[in-house]
Amino acid sequence: MATLVAFYKKPADPKAFDQHYLSTHIPLAKTIPGLRRCEISSGAVSTPQGESPYHMVAMLSFDSLEALQRGLASAEGQATAGDIGNFAQAGAELLIFDSKVV
Amino acid sequence: MATLVAFYKKPADPKAFDQHYLSTHIPLAKTIPGLRRCEISSGAVSTPQGESPYHMVAMLSFDSLEALQRGLASAEGQATAGDIGNFAQAGAELLIFDSKVV
Repeated sequence: MATLVAFYKKPADPKAFDQHYLSTHIPLAKTIPGLRRCEISSGAVSTPQGESPYHMVAMLSFDSLEALQRGLASAEGQATAGDIGNFAQAGAELLIFDSKVV
Repeated sequence: MATLVAFYKKPADPKAFDQHYLSTHIPLAKTIPGLRRCEISSGAVSTPQGESPYHMVAMLSFDSLEALQRGLASAEGQATAGDIGNFAQAGAELLIFDSKVV
């Protein structure tokens, strides 16, 4: 199992972000070959102490790191990555790793 | 469904980190009331471009944000949070949010 976690910094216009994210970006992400599961934050992204600098978190699961990397390298993966600049002007961070349930 | 994501910065001594993390911290985290699932990174935490500043990522799932917050406030949650200082001297970031599969 492998995971891609995407963190989106708080945008200037949260409504415009959400509109693009839900109507365009997530449908694009769901076309990535090998994607097994897509879970996103719903509502505020906080820390245990209070506010965080993030507006949205997405967690995409694949069968393996190889499958994740093949997915990102695919035309659909490249289209999804290319779309990030259309709505995440405040910044996005992506982390990828093999993962296991413990 | 709600998720806590913990990111641990690269430690000075990764072997000592892993030893404490796997033998002490994860067993403590697994005692948190309401925890439904604990998934951790295995091997390097990267970005699509290469190296990341992180050594480990953990994703803890609960039934709801309320259950997550009750879990963190419990004696077991406080013991788990209190243990972070014992191995994560390089820094840890925690994000909590309601989440949904899309």
